Amino acid sequence: MLEFAAVPMQWVGPILLKDGASQSTEEVSVPLATYESPLWPSTNRGAKVTRLAGGLTATVIQDFMTRSIVLEASTAHSANRICHELQTRLPDLAEVVGQTSNFARLQKLDTQIFGRVIYLRFALDTADASGHNMVTKAADHLLEWCLYQYPDLKHISVSGNYCVDKKVSAVNGILGRGKNVIAECIVPRDVCLSVLKTTPEKIVELHIKKNLMGGIVAGSLRTANAHFANMLLAFYLATGQDAANIVEGSQGMVHAELQGEDLYFSVTLPNIIVGTIGNGKHHNFVRDNLEKLGCMVDNNVGLNSKRLAQCVAATVWCGEISLLAAQTNPGELMRSHFAMERSNSINV
Amino acid sequence: MLEFAAVPMQWVGPILLKDGASQSTEEVSVPLATYESPLWPSTNRGAKVTRLAGGLTATVIQDFMTRSIVLEASTAHSANRICHELQTRLPDLAEVVGQTSNFARLQKLDTQIFGRVIYLRFALDTADASGHNMVTKAADHLLEWCLYQYPDLKHISVSGNYCVDKKVSAVNGILGRGKNVIAECIVPRDVCLSVLKTTPEKIVELHIKKNLMGGIVAGSLRTANAHFANMLLAFYLATGQDAANIVEGSQGMVHAELQGEDLYFSVTLPNIIVGTIGNGKHHNFVRDNLEKLGCMVDNNVGLNSKRLAQCVAATVWCGEISLLAAQTNPGELMRSHFAMERSNSINV
Amino acid sequence: MLEFAAVPMQWVGPILLKDGASQSTEEVSVPLATYESPLWPSTNRGAKVTRLAGGLTATVIQDFMTRSIVLEASTAHSANRICHELQTRLPDLAEVVGQTSNFARLQKLDTQIFGRVIYLRFALDTADASGHNMVTKAADHLLEWCLYQYPDLKHISVSGNYCVDKKVSAVNGILGRGKNVIAECIVPRDVCLSVLKTTPEKIVELHIKKNLMGGIVAGSLRTANAHFANMLLAFYLATGQDAANIVEGSQGMVHAELQGEDLYFSVTLPNIIVGTIGNGKHHNFVRDNLEKLGCMVDNNVGLNSKRLAQCVAATVWCGEISLLAAQTNPGELMRSHFAMERSNSINV
Amino acid sequence: MLEFAAVPMQWVGPILLKDGASQSTEEVSVPLATYESPLWPSTNRGAKVTRLAGGLTATVIQDFMTRSIVLEASTAHSANRICHELQTRLPDLAEVVGQTSNFARLQKLDTQIFGRVIYLRFALDTADASGHNMVTKAADHLLEWCLYQYPDLKHISVSGNYCVDKKVSAVNGILGRGKNVIAECIVPRDVCLSVLKTTPEKIVELHIKKNLMGGIVAGSLRTANAHFANMLLAFYLATGQDAANIVEGSQGMVHAELQGEDLYFSVTLPNIIVGTIGNGKHHNFVRDNLEKLGCMVDNNVGLNSKRLAQCVAATVWCGEISLLAAQTNPGELMRSHFAMERSNSINV
Repeated sequence: MLEFAAVPMQWVGPILLKDGASQSTEEVSVPLATYESPLWPSTNRGAKVTRLAGGLTATVIQDFMTRSIVLEASTAHSANRICHELQTRLPDLAEVVGQTSNFARLQKLDTQIFGRVIYLRFALDTADASGHNMVTKAADHLLEWCLYQYPDLKHISVSGNYCVDKKVSAVNGILGRGKNVIAECIVPRDVCLSVLKTTPEKIVELHIKKNLMGGIVAGSLRTANAHFANMLLAFYLATGQDAANIVEGSQGMVHAELQGEDLYFSVTLPNIIVGTIGNGKHHNFVRDNLEKLGCMVDNNVGLNSKRLAQCVAATVWCGEISLLAAQTNPGELMRSHFAMERSNSINV
Repeated sequence: MLEFAAVPMQWVGPILLKDGASQSTEEVSVPLATYESPLWPSTNRGAKVTRLAGGLTATVIQDFMTRSIVLEASTAHSANRICHELQTRLPDLAEVVGQTSNFARLQKLDTQIFGRVIYLRFALDTADASGHNMVTKAADHLLEWCLYQYPDLKHISVSGNYCVDKKVSAVNGILGRGKNVIAECIVPRDVCLSVLKTTPEKIVELHIKKNLMGGIVAGSLRTANAHFANMLLAFYLATGQDAANIVEGSQGMVHAELQGEDLYFSVTLPNIIVGTIGNGKHHNFVRDNLEKLGCMVDNNVGLNSKRLAQCVAATVWCGEISLLAAQTNPGELMRSHFAMERSNSINV
Repeated sequence: MLEFAAVPMQWVGPILLKDGASQSTEEVSVPLATYESPLWPSTNRGAKVTRLAGGLTATVIQDFMTRSIVLEASTAHSANRICHELQTRLPDLAEVVGQTSNFARLQKLDTQIFGRVIYLRFALDTADASGHNMVTKAADHLLEWCLYQYPDLKHISVSGNYCVDKKVSAVNGILGRGKNVIAECIVPRDVCLSVLKTTPEKIVELHIKKNLMGGIVAGSLRTANAHFANMLLAFYLATGQDAANIVEGSQGMVHAELQGEDLYFSVTLPNIIVGTIGNGKHHNFVRDNLEKLGCMVDNNVGLNSKRLAQCVAATVWCGEISLLAAQTNPGELMRSHFAMERSNSINV
Repeated sequence: MLEFAAVPMQWVGPILLKDGASQSTEEVSVPLATYESPLWPSTNRGAKVTRLAGGLTATVIQDFMTRSIVLEASTAHSANRICHELQTRLPDLAEVVGQTSNFARLQKLDTQIFGRVIYLRFALDTADASGHNMVTKAADHLLEWCLYQYPDLKHISVSGNYCVDKKVSAVNGILGRGKNVIAECIVPRDVCLSVLKTTPEKIVELHIKKNLMGGIVAGSLRTANAHFANMLLAFYLATGQDAANIVEGSQGMVHAELQGEDLYFSVTLPNIIVGTIGNGKHHNFVRDNLEKLGCMVDNNVGLNSKRLAQCVAATVWCGEISLLAAQTNPGELMRSHFAMERSNSINV
């Protein structure tokens, strides 16, 4: 018998999205599944800010999925020769990739040599799939191809942790993995005061002393935010994503600064990993949610998942600014948190 | 209307747990909620290994929850004087903590000074709660107390990211946060060959070249594993935990080495954050699951959540060894993955 | 025949030091040995700022030297038992340390367990020695003592890289190693304009977008500065220190913010590793330099090296603010750099 | 009056270098300037190993110098547009670079967007100069060019810490900076026993439990070695290099494993920053040393500094294997250290 974990889900918003090029706007509500009920009103408050501020823009900077295979040469000298040659044979590698899928396309190859061990990191366009399986299948074939082409190479594994899947790293932010999206909005001073109950100056100071400086003393890595992981988890669960990818997703950064009297506030999310097809997407409630988000448009290959990633970034923006605002005021965090939780303690 | 995200859940195991002190054993099955169906048979394979190997031992090394407040002094000189004095006033701080909860008890205070900004990191025993709310409430009062006692201090925030909640850091592993648990088992060579279809030598080599070396080239931080995050997410969802804590949970390490002809294999999880009471635990399916796990024993304060953490670590052990074994063999990963997914693509 | 590398050395300053407690001031000039001649005028400019600003205060936050031994138990369960027992036997460990030196005194023990491997990190007061040899000698004896006391332990090594000597880490900043010193000064707006040719606002903005944000995108670790390493190297070479310790020394942070119209500017250096006795200090020019710095006072055990560390931090402050100021202005960096190098290209 | 810090210098070796392609060998002695006298005999022992093992091969994997400028756009959307366009205008950027030097040539551009702040990281071939000044001069012009071409951009600074100069980072290892060199050698078992007084098995075990595992618990970043920084510092000082670059230089990795009964041992140094011309090279003793190293060959542009980098890597190999060997044996480290220091305590 198949059982289910029933994670409470609410729709939040609408968030006002503004297209970066055309400046046209649209309202989008987003589903959040979480055991932490205060997340809903908090994100809702951020959504209100976007509406009053004239809209938030989410820009997709980069988009591909990665997998790194690991091989071993007899010497570093041989490893170096092979790595250089592989960069000249990208068309061959692309052909191998093409044989494994109708969608996957090789975008680039990054290499690392550690002693005589070789890490080959393949970046693939995987259309509207998050791409875990597509890159693994492609990597499997690329691994075989490499072993055949270069008899000096020895098999180690189809995954060498230079990918990097569901683990902390610097490489995912620097070389890219998943969708790199930045959501930004200028919050007028009066909206800050009336909705967020704080000033732009206080948010900027808190951001610097908590997200930037606090992160540095904590020995964080490419991370400067309050709680990106909360919104990512709730959004991923509600849309059938592999939510373990919030690990790399959490490695994102807020940038907040004064713009005149107003507040420039953005969230940079280098590693959003989402898809509109594949694993987890066959559940009815997932399909419904993706539909409502406008991410199931036909003949729109690659754009459905990009839109989904933009919705993720917008949601993170809303939840992040709301929590930071609350943390600028002594006692507010606890008061709102407890009020919410009491009102949501409904047994299920 | 309250909606739910229905995440498919299966029971895996039983895992054979062996008590480190008494060497007595018991069988425990664990619930895993995930959209990634291959996780179930994979973890099941690891559970079979524990049964054939005579049992796995999970040791709790440390257990407390943390929150860091952030304050500012007029100078670093003043900040230093205050931080030193606070260490001599721990009984006063403990009293403040005690007024906020019947359970929370101050265990230690760690401090950092960055310029004139002060980060006070409080570690609290929070009994069977994961403790997010308990530490936040205590921190709120400690913050007020500090501001009252030291007029030179200025309020910045109740959370200064030196905590560190749901974000990557080094401090959580070094100073501790949540439950630090190590699960270990010696896998006889023949069990490795028959169940895992590989040799101890191959697992050790893969661990070194993927988890250790691959992690290093990827610029990882206190992380050396293949996919701890997968098991953590599924277990946390099935037991009503705040699953965003898989971010710090993912920062754990495998240690694998030959012991004679056999394989010593362990997983070190410095930051398991789980509770048996509090947020998320009022759902009926959650209470049922905790009950079946033996984590709802009366008059057992503090031990229920420790047992739960041991179950988490044991589960991670099972899923980790199984995937690593699969990755030692060319092609096995894809074959088993696709077979599983096809058989589980039941619409819901 | 003994040869020498002749590294050009100049005295820079005087820097105006202000005592944090008494507020009394004194002028101190510092020797810098470097092949990079622009460092002298740049640091000199910073020194001028301290004189015009009424003095800089350098506060010693913490002071001890560390070494970690590495051992192995038969199981994590046994490792845990031993680590907990060791914390109750600190007097015994202190006695072992005391037998190895007239000066070394055990301050604390931090432990980590990774699988069944144990890292014991001893922190020792080493008086006026930087303490590399003192801690190694003590660690050697502690290692033997542990092996004798706990037959379950196996020898791995006297140094387990949890120390951490001359390598990048998070642990040195979080748990401490060497002298943690913060140098700070409020720079009046007019001094900023007249001497540094820039505004407080520009320095703060550059600090945020370069040191904090730039460091984060670069995947740095507990680092937020422009060039601490330059001043550390030159000072260490001029005073006979083991200059390879600039590696951990480089992991320090600037904090700059507006204070009214003026600029609060500080440098936090958690890992200054210097001594006034021991290796390298028998060279005549080194003794002369230490004498001139006021760090060879008799009957002053422990204070000579603390004063030396304060001079280091003050020097770093001067060089850092000067470079940051230059980098706020387009083209200034190159112009001043080339002018200096031309005028210093004297063959030797 | 110009003074000098006189750092004791000795020649070590000869090291037996083996060409990776032709397999021909040559003997090279190297100068090491250091206050830490035990470094000489230790490195000498490693050099003896290379001679008995038939030679060490040092392979240059990559070679360029980097500088990152930092600019700001009005929005992330605009930043993204500009960054994408710049990648299509590399010939224009290369022309700007070409106008600033006869040697500098643009190799690639890497970009990061953080909010609306842009980091442009330029990688330049700088011939035989280490290239600090060349890249700064080029960056200065590129900055002006960008500001002129894109009126939406605002000047922040010529250096944005995504370079990364003399600071800890992950980006330098992942994208490259300076010369990436791997030195490797197979050490026959009997040489290990007779010269290093230990077994291949012991060195491998120590490497795993100290360099790899110890580094991970310490929260290190792309670092797995015992003391690369010591050899780098001594070599850099003896050859007129900017020795503050040992900070990034220290972020390198040992790879040691059994090869049959023998020991494969390599050092991977992704960030060696050395030159044979430029700052510091006009000192007579420096020119003499470079001459003796065979790095002052006429009409050999680019190859002199590559050879120098190979010598650096070979020296690091020698010092590293010797210390690791000593640390496998209880008590050996202290005995050899103290014996050496006593015999070298000659006043100067």
